[in-house]
Amino acid sequence: MEKQPHDLPKDPHSGGSNRPLPPRGFPVSEFEHRLSRAQRLMNEQGIAALLLTTEPEIRYFSGFLTQFWQSPTRPWFMVVPFWGKPIAVIPEIGAATMAATWLDDIRTWPSPAPEDDGISLLAWTLLEVAGHTGRVGLPIGPETHLRMPLADFEMLRTKIAGIELVDATSIIQSLRLIKSEAEIAKIAAMCDIASDVFDDLPHLITPGDAEEAVFRTFKIELLRRGADDVPYLVGGAGPGGYEDIISPPSHRPLQRGDVLMLDTGSVFDGYYCDFDRNFAIDRATDATCRAYETLYRATEAGLHAAHPGATCADIFASMWRELSTGSESGTTTGRLGHGLGMQLTEWPSLTPADQTVLQPGMVITLEPGLNIGSGRMMVHEENIVIRGDGAELLTRRAPAELPVIRA
Amino acid sequence: MEKQPHDLPKDPHSGGSNRPLPPRGFPVSEFEHRLSRAQRLMNEQGIAALLLTTEPEIRYFSGFLTQFWQSPTRPWFMVVPFWGKPIAVIPEIGAATMAATWLDDIRTWPSPAPEDDGISLLAWTLLEVAGHTGRVGLPIGPETHLRMPLADFEMLRTKIAGIELVDATSIIQSLRLIKSEAEIAKIAAMCDIASDVFDDLPHLITPGDAEEAVFRTFKIELLRRGADDVPYLVGGAGPGGYEDIISPPSHRPLQRGDVLMLDTGSVFDGYYCDFDRNFAIDRATDATCRAYETLYRATEAGLHAAHPGATCADIFASMWRELSTGSESGTTTGRLGHGLGMQLTEWPSLTPADQTVLQPGMVITLEPGLNIGSGRMMVHEENIVIRGDGAELLTRRAPAELPVIRA
Repeated sequence: MEKQPHDLPKDPHSGGSNRPLPPRGFPVSEFEHRLSRAQRLMNEQGIAALLLTTEPEIRYFSGFLTQFWQSPTRPWFMVVPFWGKPIAVIPEIGAATMAATWLDDIRTWPSPAPEDDGISLLAWTLLEVAGHTGRVGLPIGPETHLRMPLADFEMLRTKIAGIELVDATSIIQSLRLIKSEAEIAKIAAMCDIASDVFDDLPHLITPGDAEEAVFRTFKIELLRRGADDVPYLVGGAGPGGYEDIISPPSHRPLQRGDVLMLDTGSVFDGYYCDFDRNFAIDRATDATCRAYETLYRATEAGLHAAHPGATCADIFASMWRELSTGSESGTTTGRLGHGLGMQLTEWPSLTPADQTVLQPGMVITLEPGLNIGSGRMMVHEENIVIRGDGAELLTRRAPAELPVIRA
Repeated sequence: MEKQPHDLPKDPHSGGSNRPLPPRGFPVSEFEHRLSRAQRLMNEQGIAALLLTTEPEIRYFSGFLTQFWQSPTRPWFMVVPFWGKPIAVIPEIGAATMAATWLDDIRTWPSPAPEDDGISLLAWTLLEVAGHTGRVGLPIGPETHLRMPLADFEMLRTKIAGIELVDATSIIQSLRLIKSEAEIAKIAAMCDIASDVFDDLPHLITPGDAEEAVFRTFKIELLRRGADDVPYLVGGAGPGGYEDIISPPSHRPLQRGDVLMLDTGSVFDGYYCDFDRNFAIDRATDATCRAYETLYRATEAGLHAAHPGATCADIFASMWRELSTGSESGTTTGRLGHGLGMQLTEWPSLTPADQTVLQPGMVITLEPGLNIGSGRMMVHEENIVIRGDGAELLTRRAPAELPVIRA
């Protein structure tokens, strides 16, 4: 159990599961397994080294976990060679933290050094691993970016002019799509904590509370129950639905007839949950209840469709069918769900175009939406892991009927 | 005043200033002023449009504030033309939130669309603004990155082949280096809140508490007192000092003779504080007290040196002199301070090489460090704004003597 913070009474409404939290970090065997999968794919594609620059990519191969990434000042690099352990090429300030990981080869430079912020050191490392004419892969496809100044990347290109840079998105993608049991346990733990807080929310807030206060209470409760951080909390409230689902909270008080939605991406040991819950304030109209039931049915359809062998497009179709019956009109935020893990959103996407085949170990969200008129909508979201026999819920399933928060 | 969350008693030790929080958002005149400064510089450099892709860049010109950036799936673009308001080129999911800003021209596409994720729409917009042979500036220098897939950027380059892409880092930098009074008020408010919590910390934690519990209590207290978020909390504890200042907290209990350091980047309305405080657990040796006093003196030297006309290198030199006297040895995390504002760290850096001249309205941190042997260190940090007559503290100055936390 997490120690309760001082001066904060244990919540009297706590109906939490009190399941023990999984251990932090990973055994070395986890990283060895990730590396050997990567090296097999690199070998197949004739890639001598991977060049990685972003937080999740570097953490995936090292376990390096720090909030220092919030500072944009310094670039951080990792070179994954075709043989042997990953090599960290990082600012000196990270040396002690990186030395606590399973890596052995940690190369540092004093940063910030705007004239040459690790570029020469990185170039030498790539030339050492890949030779002067080898192939180096880096992720340049959908949902990736290069976390270093573009001018520095051009300088690097010049220094390793004989090396061919190729797209390694598919390698990183295929590795990270399938979660290990240890990864799933962390996501499940975070889902448990957030499910507890959602269950208790009717006891924690009251009609008349400002959205801003509701968000604050919810965040604090997540931290009290064991979330490490709440990097993502969005939502909205309005009569029968909400207009906007990505804005910060307003000062508007919750009013009778509102539907309140909170959507959180909270983190335990570097792994996210990402789901939402809806609540009626004091009362709900029949139309609101029907919309909620439609979203519930669409999610059920997704749960039934999400088995190994089905494609993301198949799940989209199953859910969309439920959203488009009767007088209601389905809506998407561009998709009806997505991958989940070290980031709030990961590959794949539940869209008609995404032909990714579901496999055991994939963790995804199911996220149907409904237009309810007047520019308003309702959305719903659950998190699941694909098992051999179908979907296993990581979130505690939302109630079949819209819960009501009363004064 | 912020509403206190439910079930959380008002803190009995609250000695807070109860200053009212500044208003959220900015008046339109603030954005008009930012834009006209940008367009003057663009005109000087013959740049027809700026292309921006990151959260702070886009927020700076629009006020667009959302945690949705946590999702790496979708790219977001802004085009700042040489005349007229900025143009948002964004995923449909952001339309409602962007429509609430001062912008008029909001162009959206249904995202995610891996085959063409806004690239055609962006290319048309750039060609419309800059013509087929104009110059488009984008930030590619130190501390910047391009937040879009590299493959998409290459596709864009092909679609706007006649346009010359040039480095606009200096434009963005010179704008954001100088904060408005409204920006300073937000940073000051966050510094006030965090100063209150640091002042109360000896009443909130006790020797024997695990680091992890101390961090959790501290975060919760920041939220209770009005911080919107705590994206950055690092620190450490150990006998006489700490080994690592960027790691997550351990489960180790605070022990007699430890020095505990907490360093937070918390946010109010999108603006950061970034400072730390040290505490002795139960007792401090003479050596520890001397080290603390040296850091205090070095910060005083920085405060005196930080006046308009001085360079960052000058402030570095003033602080470093204090750190390098006697038997102690100064240390840096690569620098002795940095800019602060919409990001945890911004330009400039307090290094011997940074010749940036301080001007009124710059907000920076002063961050001296000392090696205390055995791989341990002590660090200290304050936040200041440069005024016409010198440094104004935004943080409540740390006590001159190391505070002690007792059972």
